[in-house]
Amino acid sequence: MTTTELLLSHRSVRRYKEKEISQGVLERLIECGARASNTGNMQLYSVVVTRGEEERKALSQWHYGQGSTAPMYLTICADVNRYHLWCEQSGCDTPYGNLLWLLSATIDASLFAQNLCVAAEAEGLGFCYLGTVLYNAPEIGELLKLPKGVVPVITLSIGYADEEPAQSERLPLEGIVHEREYKAYSDDDIRRIHQLREEFPFNQEMVRQNGVRNLAELFTEKRYPRKQNEEISAKLEKYLKEQGFLG
Amino acid sequence: MTTTELLLSHRSVRRYKEKEISQGVLERLIECGARASNTGNMQLYSVVVTRGEEERKALSQWHYGQGSTAPMYLTICADVNRYHLWCEQSGCDTPYGNLLWLLSATIDASLFAQNLCVAAEAEGLGFCYLGTVLYNAPEIGELLKLPKGVVPVITLSIGYADEEPAQSERLPLEGIVHEREYKAYSDDDIRRIHQLREEFPFNQEMVRQNGVRNLAELFTEKRYPRKQNEEISAKLEKYLKEQGFLG
Repeated sequence: MTTTELLLSHRSVRRYKEKEISQGVLERLIECGARASNTGNMQLYSVVVTRGEEERKALSQWHYGQGSTAPMYLTICADVNRYHLWCEQSGCDTPYGNLLWLLSATIDASLFAQNLCVAAEAEGLGFCYLGTVLYNAPEIGELLKLPKGVVPVITLSIGYADEEPAQSERLPLEGIVHEREYKAYSDDDIRRIHQLREEFPFNQEMVRQNGVRNLAELFTEKRYPRKQNEEISAKLEKYLKEQGFLG
Repeated sequence: MTTTELLLSHRSVRRYKEKEISQGVLERLIECGARASNTGNMQLYSVVVTRGEEERKALSQWHYGQGSTAPMYLTICADVNRYHLWCEQSGCDTPYGNLLWLLSATIDASLFAQNLCVAAEAEGLGFCYLGTVLYNAPEIGELLKLPKGVVPVITLSIGYADEEPAQSERLPLEGIVHEREYKAYSDDDIRRIHQLREEFPFNQEMVRQNGVRNLAELFTEKRYPRKQNEEISAKLEKYLKEQGFLG
C-alpha cells in the first residue's frame, strides 16, 4: 500500500486485541512522531505511556471507558516545562508561559501525534483520538503527575484492531477549501456541503435512535450541548491558568 | 520508500522551484488531510489556497518573506463558522465559541495539516510550517477575509524543493517519553537530554554567529525574546476574543 493509499484508508479503531505493542514498535512510532516539524525545533511536547492493567483502568475512567480494551494509552502533552528547565540551567529567561506558546505547543503536540498515528497504521496498528482528554485535563494531569507548564491535549488509545470499522464520511472538498480568500457561504452552499453527511446511513440511524429532528441537533443537544461545553471550557480555562499558560 | 522511511526522512524545505502544483495533486493532498481524525467528525477547519504572484506577495509580507519562492501557501484555519452556519440552518444552538473549541479546532486543523504534509512528501513535494502565522493572525485574517469563528493557526509554504536541506536534530526519546507518569527531570537529565542538541554543528555555528553564550540564549534572546513574545501573545488574545473564541 502506498503512503497516499494508507492515508486515504484511515479508520479509527475502538476495539482492540489483547496483543501488546512491543517496546521496539513503540519506539519506532515515537521516533516517527518526533520527526514532525515543530516550533523552532523546541519540541514543545511530551508523551506519557500508560500500560499495565491498573494504570490503564485509572486513566480509562477519565475517558468514560473509551479505549479500555486497548493495551496502551498515549497521552500527548503541550509541554514548556522541559524547555524552561533547560533555559534556567543555561542561565536564560523563561518567557513561554502564555497564550502564544499554548497554541504553539498544542500544534507541536498535534503534529507529533499525527505522524505517530500514520506510522502506527503503517505498522498494522489502529488507534483512536479521545477528545475527552480536554474534558478532564485537570484530573488526567494529576493522575499523570504533570507539572506546571504541561497540559494533556491529546490522548490516543492504540493497539491491534479487533474490528473492521466502516470508514466515516467527510465533507466534500468544496466545503473546506477556499481559493484566494474565505468565501461567504450561502444557505445553498451550506445545504449542499452537508447533504452527503445528512444522508449518510449511519448518521440517519443515529438521528432516528436519538429521537432528534436532524443531525445538527444530535450534535448540539446530545453530543456537545451548551451547558456541558461551557462547564468544560471554564474548567479547562482554570486549569490552563494554574499550569501557567493563561494570565 | 516505506511510509515509516518517509516519515523518518522529513526535512523542511525553504527554497522552491517555480514548478506549479497541479490542481489534481492539490486535491489529493487535501483529501488525505481530510481523512485525519477530527473532533466528532465536525471537521473544525478550513484551508485557504494562495497562489498567483500578487496574492503570494501580499501574504508573504506577514511571514517576513518566508516561503516567498514557493508556488503556493496553504493557510489552515481553526473554523467553527461553517459548523455554526449549518447548526443555524438546522434550527439548532451554536455553543462552540469558547476555549474548549478553540483548542479542539486547533488540533483538528493540525491533524489535517500533518496528514496533508505526509501526503505531500509522498508526492515528491516539500513544505515548511510558518510559525509566523500566529504572530500576524489578525492581519492574515483580514487579508484572507476570515469571518468571526475562523482563525488561521497554520501556514504552509509548499512546492517542489530547490534545495537538499540537511536533517535537523531531535531530542533523544528519553527526553520526550514518560513511562506511567511524568518524571521530574533532574539537572543531569536536562543536561544529558540536550547534549546532542548543544553539540550539533549547525547549532554551534548559530551560537557563534549570534555572539550568544549558549544555544538556550539564542532562543530566549534572539529568536523568541520575552518582549516580542508578550506583545504577540497579547495581540493574539485580542484577536481570539474578536473572533469569538475567548470570553
